[in-house]
Order: sequence, then C-alpha cells, then structure tokens
Amino acid sequence: MPLKSKAAARRWRQKNRRGGVVTAALVIIGNEVLSGRTQDANLKFLAEGLNGLGVRLREARVIADDEPTIVATVNELRRRDDYVFTTGGIGPTHDDITAAAIAKAFKRRLERNAEAEARLRRHYRPEDITEARMSMADMPEGATLIDNPVSRAPGFQIENVFVLPGVPRIMQAMFDGLKARLKGGKPVFSKAVIAYIPEGVMAAPLEDVQKAYPETEIGSYPFFRLGKVGTSLVVRSVDHQKVNAAAEAIRGIIRGLGGQPEEG
Amino acid sequence: MPLKSKAAARRWRQKNRRGGVVTAALVIIGNEVLSGRTQDANLKFLAEGLNGLGVRLREARVIADDEPTIVATVNELRRRDDYVFTTGGIGPTHDDITAAAIAKAFKRRLERNAEAEARLRRHYRPEDITEARMSMADMPEGATLIDNPVSRAPGFQIENVFVLPGVPRIMQAMFDGLKARLKGGKPVFSKAVIAYIPEGVMAAPLEDVQKAYPETEIGSYPFFRLGKVGTSLVVRSVDHQKVNAAAEAIRGIIRGLGGQPEEG
Repeated sequence: MPLKSKAAARRWRQKNRRGGVVTAALVIIGNEVLSGRTQDANLKFLAEGLNGLGVRLREARVIADDEPTIVATVNELRRRDDYVFTTGGIGPTHDDITAAAIAKAFKRRLERNAEAEARLRRHYRPEDITEARMSMADMPEGATLIDNPVSRAPGFQIENVFVLPGVPRIMQAMFDGLKARLKGGKPVFSKAVIAYIPEGVMAAPLEDVQKAYPETEIGSYPFFRLGKVGTSLVVRSVDHQKVNAAAEAIRGIIRGLGGQPEEG
Repeated sequence: MPLKSKAAARRWRQKNRRGGVVTAALVIIGNEVLSGRTQDANLKFLAEGLNGLGVRLREARVIADDEPTIVATVNELRRRDDYVFTTGGIGPTHDDITAAAIAKAFKRRLERNAEAEARLRRHYRPEDITEARMSMADMPEGATLIDNPVSRAPGFQIENVFVLPGVPRIMQAMFDGLKARLKGGKPVFSKAVIAYIPEGVMAAPLEDVQKAYPETEIGSYPFFRLGKVGTSLVVRSVDHQKVNAAAEAIRGIIRGLGGQPEEG
C-alpha cells in the first residue's frame, strides 16, 4: 500500500509491530440487525473470505443508521486497521445514508459519480429511472467503484474503506470481485480437533500445550451435540508446522484421557 | 437506577437527552466468531429480549480474546450506555480471560467468589473437581452472581455490566433469569409491511411518509424471494398510534402502485 497519508503511515508502523499481520474491521450498518429482526450473515462470510486472503478480521461493529455514529466509527477504525469494510445503507431510500456519512468522514464532497450513473441508466428501462434510483450513484469525490454483478448499483472504495451493500447475495458477489485489490499478510492456518470430553477436564494439560507453543492461539469451545458434552479445540497460527505440532499434542491429551480425537 | 457513581450520573443525563430511551451495548468476546468459524447467535436473541423489556440495543461489538481490547471496549461502553452485556470467555480454560479483564476494567481485585465456588462444588462430583473448574468462581470483588440453571457456573454483574457465557443455550437461560434486574424505558413498537415492489419505485412517497411521521423510524429492506424482488418496510417508534398510522400510509402507497401489502 503506498503511504499516501499520515493515516496510512501510521497503519504501516502498526502492522510492522504486529509482525506483518494485515488487519481489517467490519462495520455492519443496520437498525434491522440491532433490533434483532434480521440475523446478520455478512460477518461470517467476510471473516472467512478475508482469512483466505491473509487478512485478519480484528473487530466487527454493528451500529445504527445514524450519521454521527457512522462517521465516528469509520474514522476510528480506518486509522487503526489496514482495511475497513462497511455493509448496509447504500440503497435508494431515505434510510440509506452510508455514502453521505462516508463522504463526511473523509471530509469530501458527495457527488454523482458519472460512471456509476451510466451503469444505472444502462440497467433500468427509461420509464423505471427514478431520482431515488439515480441517487445510488452519489458517492464521495474520488471514490473508486466496486462492481455489482447482481443488481448493477456499485459500491465504492475510498482509501482503505470499502463500502458494500447489506443484502448478503449481492455483498458476496461484490466482495469476490474486489479480492484482487486486497493485499494480505501471512496466511493464518488453523486446525480443529474435537473430543467428547468436557473442557474442564482438559484445561490444565491444554494450558501446558499453549505454553509450549506460544506462536499459536489455542481456543477451547464447549458444545452440546446428541445429548453429549464436547469440546472443540482450535489451533491458529501463521506457522503451519506449529499448528500441526500443537494439534498433535492436543490429540495426545485426548487419548491420554481415554477419548477419541476427531477432525473438527 | 441509583446514581452511585459519576458514570451513572452521566448515563442518567444522556438518557434524559434521549427522551427516556434506555440503551444497551453488547460485547461479543470471541476469536471463533471473528475468524468466521462460528456463526454468532447471541446478538439476535439479546436484541429481541432487550427490546421486549424496553431496552434498545444501540451497538454490538465483536472483539478478540485480548485483555487490553476487552478492558478498553467495556470501559468505553459502560460509561455511554445504561447496560452492557458481554458474552464469551468465562469457561475453565486458559483462553477464558473475560472475568480477569472485567476486574481490570473496574480496577477491582479478582477473587474467588465463595457462593459461586459453593455452587460448583455442589454441582461436580468430588473426583471431577479441578482447579480449572473452580477458576470459574473467580470474579471481580463485589460482583453479583447471575444464576446458571443449565451448567451451574454462574455469570456475574458488576455495576451496569452483565457477564454471560458464549454458548447460546446457556446464555439464553441465564438472560431469562436476570430480566427482573433490568429496568426498561418506553417500549418500542414496530410493524412490518411487505410488498413485491422494488424499493427504488417506492422511495419518493416513502420519504414523504417518513417526513409526515418524524416520531417514527422507517426502514426499507430489499429482499429476493421465490425469484421475486420485494421490500420489507419496518416502522418503529415508542408511539404506538404513529406506528399504525405510518404503516397504514405505507399500505396506501403500495396499493397506489398496484401492489398488495402483506403483513411482515
């Protein structure tokens, strides 16, 4: 990433401190998620997609459709993380305020993007063109379009912020198209081992494995399945060999406790 | 809520500015959600549950199992909102760091809670008692227990922060039990109207309805179902009559466009 701004230079220094790990934050803009009406599906999809590119999702925030909140949240996160993704609030109705809020966050003018307008005019029949629909071409000055292969209305990128729609089907197609613009760091490998043993029984030897492999993160997640208590143990690291070694040590603990380790 | 502290007094002033609306923030502590391995289910449940009590979920944050991050996030949100709920990280393993982080956020000592320890000792057979399991009784000094009817290990409350586990089944049972401690504000009413009309066609008259009923929030959410494009229009307000009136106006728009309004 070229060091175009003070913020970019700051992110670069932070990334070096993190040992080359590239980070992202996700801002889910949506009263419908906060009210519990809609189950968010975008966090999981983006987390997995970013992971595959060597970008680590560091935080996700679900915030209201409220301009000062969007401005403050995006400004905080774009200075801290390498990439920020937003979902939601870029449709044609009065409650779609994301583009205007992002323009305000960057102190740029909101303008009608000529290329975005041209795409919308090609997509709709002349009799279906409304001012509301054309308003989906309003973006911060200098924004770069993100193609929308499903319903045409593009998203946009401005510096390290990527503005995507909330409808999962459309968001997913658009994210797949913009992957080439993202530069990941070291990919994170992970391995999950499952055992039908309560985590409280494994806790002490598990902590020893974590200490023996400090380059890895070992997570322990209890679950109930078919009336049985089990634990899913997930090892993550940029060091593939350490992941395998720690997972093997965990399998040893499980066997030592009379259990049968399974692939997670 | 008694005004025990400066923070409580500040929240009280903010609430009055918000017209009596009581707010909550949710902090989902979990690398497994941020990595995309696990689909969060707690946001939707808590959002709906709080809504039913007249408490508005204002923001949700998904953060990593990282002590400085937990401390900073909880301290920011507990000073801003009336209630803060955390989920995750209160089990027996090395990656369960929430209780210690919350103690640090409140600058309190982490101590073994006698009542919590007694409950764990009653729950486990003597041969199943491990130090790891007993560590689930470690809580900030002065914490109030939150009963766990499923697996006994309690959560805890400290001032306006409620610390719950991440496993949905257990979290839900514990939340149901602590509802009596929460004091809601004016309940928010909502009504959803669905139409198989693209939102771009309704945008202009919809904005007029929003202007005519400024006491309401009208959200417009496009969807695809059975190959058809539709829009879900959700009206929300503490004023029940205004919700009904705005919903009726929206039904009028839909009929005027040749559509058939349906219940959402």
